Amino acid sequence: MHILVIGAAGMVGRKLVEALVTRGEVNGEPVEAFTLVDVVAPTEPAGFNGKVRLVAADLSDQGVATGLIAERPDLIFHLAAIVSGEAEADFEKGYRINLDGTRELLEAIRLEGKKAPYKPKLVFTSSIAVFGQPFPDMIGDTYHNTPLTSYGTQKAIGELLLADYSRRGFLDGVGIRLPTIVVRPGKPNKAASGFFSNILREPLSGIEAVLPVSEDVRHWFASPRAAVGFLLHAAQMDTASLGARRSLTMPGLSATVGEEIEALRRFAGDNAVKLIRRQPDEAIVKMVAGWPQNFDASRATSLGFKADKSFDDIIRAHVEDELGGSIPG
Amino acid sequence: MHILVIGAAGMVGRKLVEALVTRGEVNGEPVEAFTLVDVVAPTEPAGFNGKVRLVAADLSDQGVATGLIAERPDLIFHLAAIVSGEAEADFEKGYRINLDGTRELLEAIRLEGKKAPYKPKLVFTSSIAVFGQPFPDMIGDTYHNTPLTSYGTQKAIGELLLADYSRRGFLDGVGIRLPTIVVRPGKPNKAASGFFSNILREPLSGIEAVLPVSEDVRHWFASPRAAVGFLLHAAQMDTASLGARRSLTMPGLSATVGEEIEALRRFAGDNAVKLIRRQPDEAIVKMVAGWPQNFDASRATSLGFKADKSFDDIIRAHVEDELGGSIPG
Repeated sequence: MHILVIGAAGMVGRKLVEALVTRGEVNGEPVEAFTLVDVVAPTEPAGFNGKVRLVAADLSDQGVATGLIAERPDLIFHLAAIVSGEAEADFEKGYRINLDGTRELLEAIRLEGKKAPYKPKLVFTSSIAVFGQPFPDMIGDTYHNTPLTSYGTQKAIGELLLADYSRRGFLDGVGIRLPTIVVRPGKPNKAASGFFSNILREPLSGIEAVLPVSEDVRHWFASPRAAVGFLLHAAQMDTASLGARRSLTMPGLSATVGEEIEALRRFAGDNAVKLIRRQPDEAIVKMVAGWPQNFDASRATSLGFKADKSFDDIIRAHVEDELGGSIPG
Repeated sequence: MHILVIGAAGMVGRKLVEALVTRGEVNGEPVEAFTLVDVVAPTEPAGFNGKVRLVAADLSDQGVATGLIAERPDLIFHLAAIVSGEAEADFEKGYRINLDGTRELLEAIRLEGKKAPYKPKLVFTSSIAVFGQPFPDMIGDTYHNTPLTSYGTQKAIGELLLADYSRRGFLDGVGIRLPTIVVRPGKPNKAASGFFSNILREPLSGIEAVLPVSEDVRHWFASPRAAVGFLLHAAQMDTASLGARRSLTMPGLSATVGEEIEALRRFAGDNAVKLIRRQPDEAIVKMVAGWPQNFDASRATSLGFKADKSFDDIIRAHVEDELGGSIPG
């Protein structure tokens, strides 16, 4: 089986490729080749003996999608996107990469299928940013998409296209709306949602972190490990059960910042918690107030997608996967 | 005020222009100029003394939208679309006209606004085809869009773009999801939904009509008069009340075919009803079974959009507007 990963240099993309190499198979079929694509060249996956092609390219550039699809990969993960903040700051770039890039990919698949039968599985990462205020207490599987960012708009359009191209039989698509990923490894970044990770990751390494909102803020989370699990399950599930509704809100963990902090205390003690410095930031407080807090993701759950069980599990997974299993004493 | 109507040669477009000429004003501002566009040249509006430009052009062709918007119309009605059946039969044409055409228009407006401040009102006709089975008994204002046709997909994407371009301040958009229009004037056409009109229009003129489904089929209707009323109200409403949710399910009349027939009997007697020939068509029966039957359109109602009250009213409007007020004896 030949797997194409678009957005392979990102955090989730790298972990996905690692997991695919470790498994060695998808639905019983051996993984024989990877094509890994990103705007910067992805790194060679460690421990993989099959064929690997690394591509540095922008999916929205003329001919890029056609070239990738000419190889007729069996399974495609489309994870590439300009993130929310950048798509808001640069309107044209966001539409070009997130909408035109996705459409180029879908069109390349459709046109390849006109030459000779071809119907790859396509896993598309969408986002809970397809939803916008006002919200019910729990956002159910039939709640409408009313994004309040250009990024969310582009993802919602991607979902609609994925469903139509699947319905027409051009490809076999699954869209997964990822929760906010915690704990993101690496350095603190400028994403408004970064503090959800920072207040765990930094204290776990003995470093101070800033908390810009109050402890009662509630949000919807998944660990990187759960996110990779969603992608692998989407790639392997029987899509007949999806019918025409190809995108699913992934099951996350609904938790407050206070609950995050208590999980940190249980794992790493009071001294770790003391490294969280409260410094309210009105701009972030306001932005976060518009974000979804809780979902009823029963459709995805009934289709076998699995959420993290607790923030204790999320912290443990981070320490195992990123810190070698233990924290500095 | 300068009004641009795209799709001005269609049935709703012609009636809209007529109504605008009769009114002579929109929100108290006199109508001074029209630009009327369609793929075939629209006809000169009767009884209008202002400036008129008639354009035969395809909105998705290079430069067409830019040329129309360079005139900086104050109010734009975008009614142009490839209909459902054709968009399903010709995938590329449907996406080109219904998606790319709409996007060209939005982009032309955004780019015109970069030269000098410009923020026109844009009324976009969407459709209840943005919804797809399975349905609740009443489809509410927060039910998700899961179209089962490429046409419905293109309309749903148009709604998302309209909302994002409005949110960003490039234009002031309102999307209206039209019910099925009855009684459509003219000859019977090949649209699968045509029989809803045929079984009234033809008998009212003493001609036989075919009914391909059973009398218990329920659907969601509006008269051409109501549709024009929706467009005029959308053009004049204060959009502040819409917030970021720019598209609305229009209030229709939920009725069965049997109720249609009883209204025909009340208006035109048993002899008219006898002109309806029952001839079940399994393909149409199956298609119609997937169509929405009933909506809770309370958001639009609370914003002042008005539905037809009964099928008796719909028939009376048809006879007044199309048959000179009375039917052949």
